[in-house]
Amino acid sequence: MATLIAPKHPSPVADAEAIRNAVQGLGTNEKTIIAIIAHRNAVQRKLIRYAYEEIYQEDLVKRLESELTGEFEKAVCRWMLEPADRDAVSANVAIKQLTCDHRVITELSCIYSPEELLAVKRAYQALYKHSMEEDLAAHTSGDLRKLLVALVGTYRYDGDEVNGKLANSEAKVLHNAIKGEVIVQDEIIRIVSTRSKAQLMATFNCYKAQYGTSITKHLVEDPANQCLAAVHTALQCINNPLKYYEKVLRSALNKPGTDEDVLTRVIVTRAEKDLKEIKDLYYKRTSQSLDHAVGKDTSGDYKSFLLTLLGHQD
Amino acid sequence: MATLIAPKHPSPVADAEAIRNAVQGLGTNEKTIIAIIAHRNAVQRKLIRYAYEEIYQEDLVKRLESELTGEFEKAVCRWMLEPADRDAVSANVAIKQLTCDHRVITELSCIYSPEELLAVKRAYQALYKHSMEEDLAAHTSGDLRKLLVALVGTYRYDGDEVNGKLANSEAKVLHNAIKGEVIVQDEIIRIVSTRSKAQLMATFNCYKAQYGTSITKHLVEDPANQCLAAVHTALQCINNPLKYYEKVLRSALNKPGTDEDVLTRVIVTRAEKDLKEIKDLYYKRTSQSLDHAVGKDTSGDYKSFLLTLLGHQD
Repeated sequence: MATLIAPKHPSPVADAEAIRNAVQGLGTNEKTIIAIIAHRNAVQRKLIRYAYEEIYQEDLVKRLESELTGEFEKAVCRWMLEPADRDAVSANVAIKQLTCDHRVITELSCIYSPEELLAVKRAYQALYKHSMEEDLAAHTSGDLRKLLVALVGTYRYDGDEVNGKLANSEAKVLHNAIKGEVIVQDEIIRIVSTRSKAQLMATFNCYKAQYGTSITKHLVEDPANQCLAAVHTALQCINNPLKYYEKVLRSALNKPGTDEDVLTRVIVTRAEKDLKEIKDLYYKRTSQSLDHAVGKDTSGDYKSFLLTLLGHQD
Repeated sequence: MATLIAPKHPSPVADAEAIRNAVQGLGTNEKTIIAIIAHRNAVQRKLIRYAYEEIYQEDLVKRLESELTGEFEKAVCRWMLEPADRDAVSANVAIKQLTCDHRVITELSCIYSPEELLAVKRAYQALYKHSMEEDLAAHTSGDLRKLLVALVGTYRYDGDEVNGKLANSEAKVLHNAIKGEVIVQDEIIRIVSTRSKAQLMATFNCYKAQYGTSITKHLVEDPANQCLAAVHTALQCINNPLKYYEKVLRSALNKPGTDEDVLTRVIVTRAEKDLKEIKDLYYKRTSQSLDHAVGKDTSGDYKSFLLTLLGHQD
């Protein structure tokens, strides 16, 4: 369930005018901006952008970029982009980092549906005149490259059909690959990047039944091995996306110096989808509300914006 | 240009009725079948299938499968399938062979447009309840697997923008990868499988300018190295699809025992596209018409069918 609270039929023109007033002249009225856009769903925001462009002949996101600053600006602008464009931008930023943030790529491949991933790849090409695959391949290397390019490249089968015999045999393949003296990454990459999610869930269940422990627990994370860390992330994303996001938020918040990039990404991308469930999991796990934790670690307009997306009522 | 000769507005119902008469009762009238379907384009054939199914409550392709035999049956049934379904079937057959026929996969990735490849991948999933990537990955191994899965996985950028500096530097990367003591396949695979076709053409041109020879000539084919053979095919497909198809036809015909699979595939898939140009190239290269060569190496209904698709008039 979404945490976003949006009125049913707001007027895009009235919204565009109110935002125009908030950004015109000296100083910007951030409160008005938050009060509007943090209470509008994707379709409503898109209509505001259309209306704003029609009336004022300028792109609203560009205007907001120039009016706002810091983490607040980043969060607002990502929120205002169409979901596929937003994810394409996140992917591009992740790819161009010194060390590619594999989580962004893995989420797209292992949590998003094949059609959603395809939409992001199309958006990426329209924005950057390159395929996501080629940028990813050019900016990574070694086993991590093999894994990430394979993850993004696959157009997974999205049906429910599961082959039980195959699940059984590939659970064995995975176990041998993980438990041998040297971890055989090629077979792990092949299975995780190409099989359908339903098939992978069946394989993971077989794994647990045969070896007594879940595969994610068997595959111990090794910070020195980026590829294995990414495989670990992929397994978590396929296994239980909500639990994965809860964990990601928890580690973004509970470290010296909050990881605002992650905080923004998860809240902005999930607020209209399943942030309610993620909040519940967070509370169960930490006995603290996510709103409280976010409020403690952020400040100013950025804080108000995130809390509003989290469904926090003043 | 197509070699197919089709009337403008045939009646699908009249066609379906005529085909029904040809397959009903004792014996099959192959001549009638050829006279109709080998003179109908993809849309017209689809309408015949619809009409046939409506009137006779059976699938025309299944009926033809049971009525016809041998290479003629295979060719007719492939021809009657929708292009994306036909290519999905060809890919599946190629993947399931003892040694995966890399040409079928490479053609899809390096000659078809990204959207056409995507359509084939969708058709593949609808037919086999698996992704093409997972079947390919499960039935191949080693470097060939890396290359083929990468080729099929990439959703290439399809625009014309070319980065000249990048073309220059990747020509060097390719040269170093090919001319070192050990061929570094990873870099070759990355470039060939992820870059846009326009970018690759620019890279190949830089290669020729810098090193005096085309990359396809530098990369000597080594029958023992399947991956390199597939890279070679990919380079040819990107460089000049018509020349590639001409060469494939030539080698299918000029060997002891014609390779009917290849003959059927190329003629059936290109008859509505560019078989005219391929025929011209064949004539230039061999001083013999393709019709003549096909006629010499085939017989019976199969021969008549292929020659009709080749635009041969009685």
